[in-house]
Amino acid sequence: MGAAGGPGRAGLVLGLALGSAGLVAVLVLAAWRRRRRPMREVLFFPSLPSCTEELLAQAAGPEAAARPCPCPLPQRDCSLSRLLQLLLSARRSLDLCLFSFSNPQLGRAVQLLHRRGVRVRVITDEQYMGLRGSQIGFLRHAGIQVRHDQDTGYMHHKFAIVDQRILMTGSLNWTTQAIQNNRENLLVMEDAEYVKPFLDEFERIWEEYNPINYKFFSNGSK
Amino acid sequence: MGAAGGPGRAGLVLGLALGSAGLVAVLVLAAWRRRRRPMREVLFFPSLPSCTEELLAQAAGPEAAARPCPCPLPQRDCSLSRLLQLLLSARRSLDLCLFSFSNPQLGRAVQLLHRRGVRVRVITDEQYMGLRGSQIGFLRHAGIQVRHDQDTGYMHHKFAIVDQRILMTGSLNWTTQAIQNNRENLLVMEDAEYVKPFLDEFERIWEEYNPINYKFFSNGSK
Repeated sequence: MGAAGGPGRAGLVLGLALGSAGLVAVLVLAAWRRRRRPMREVLFFPSLPSCTEELLAQAAGPEAAARPCPCPLPQRDCSLSRLLQLLLSARRSLDLCLFSFSNPQLGRAVQLLHRRGVRVRVITDEQYMGLRGSQIGFLRHAGIQVRHDQDTGYMHHKFAIVDQRILMTGSLNWTTQAIQNNRENLLVMEDAEYVKPFLDEFERIWEEYNPINYKFFSNGSK
Repeated sequence: MGAAGGPGRAGLVLGLALGSAGLVAVLVLAAWRRRRRPMREVLFFPSLPSCTEELLAQAAGPEAAARPCPCPLPQRDCSLSRLLQLLLSARRSLDLCLFSFSNPQLGRAVQLLHRRGVRVRVITDEQYMGLRGSQIGFLRHAGIQVRHDQDTGYMHHKFAIVDQRILMTGSLNWTTQAIQNNRENLLVMEDAEYVKPFLDEFERIWEEYNPINYKFFSNGSK
């Protein structure tokens, strides 16, 4: 019996070892599959015309969500809707670093986030922020912090970072002309290896453009 | 002896099983580590001034490589040098889709690649290609294929694809003003998930801007 117990115990050990290894492999595979895949998208413009009212109404509050789209344009399924949707997903912070910002839908989305308590910061270009149709004045009026350069060079970035996690960057200025008429691209990336350098660049510029560093000339004009 | 051989054989089997599993794990890990990591970089501008002559001379041919940098500026280690270096690494193809292209160093690099037998194709914006300092005329003169839009909207992309493998895209137009004075970004990515949509966009635009589709008006002007 003792001698027969030998191979039995060894077989049990072998079985247990292989079984455990299999179980671990299955658990690791399941965890790997369950892990949400980080967002990696490329949006191209010009964007199809579409109704963005539903997205903005939903974001404004539950009572407004039932309001049907007021125009016959299709909803969603276009690059502008996707950008708007990603933007409105912000819960804690929105950092915008935009050469030119004049699209009214995107302006409304940013104001809405600010009202919802999301910390919004905007960096923009001095030469372009005063142009007709610019949203920068409205954003400032709504109490959103805006900083700008004082250089002869342009602050030419066009990126947004949602909740310090989702980066949207590309050739697209946030203007209706660019969205509706230009060939443009916008990358959506949730990958820290790309997001981190842009977060650092934002903080670097934000500090550099601190109003305490602005220079004013003796005649009162800048 | 026979009974004692039972546990011995089972032990041997167990040992072999665990040993093989360990060996496989080590080999897989080694292969995974050996695999070259795909490029993932972010370049920011303005770029430090630097001498790009050495890079261009090296690319021109081995006899020119020994020529020392003709100016006291530091070499490499700046965003422009890195962009130039990546560009000059092209062996088979270079696809450029650029709103504005006037930087002479980058223009020389593209001509050099063309002379080296790399298939260069350029898509650009009609309204900007004729501006003073534009490299587009030089590229056409050198025999490089260039196609452009005929729209009122801008062909506003700013991307390059090297050997259908490395994508460089961002806010940066290929102008000396942008490189030396603006706040700009350029992503370098070797990831097919991002490269493929840009390759498709390039082919789509390349076909759409085929000169056989150009429209000419009756008075002879476009």
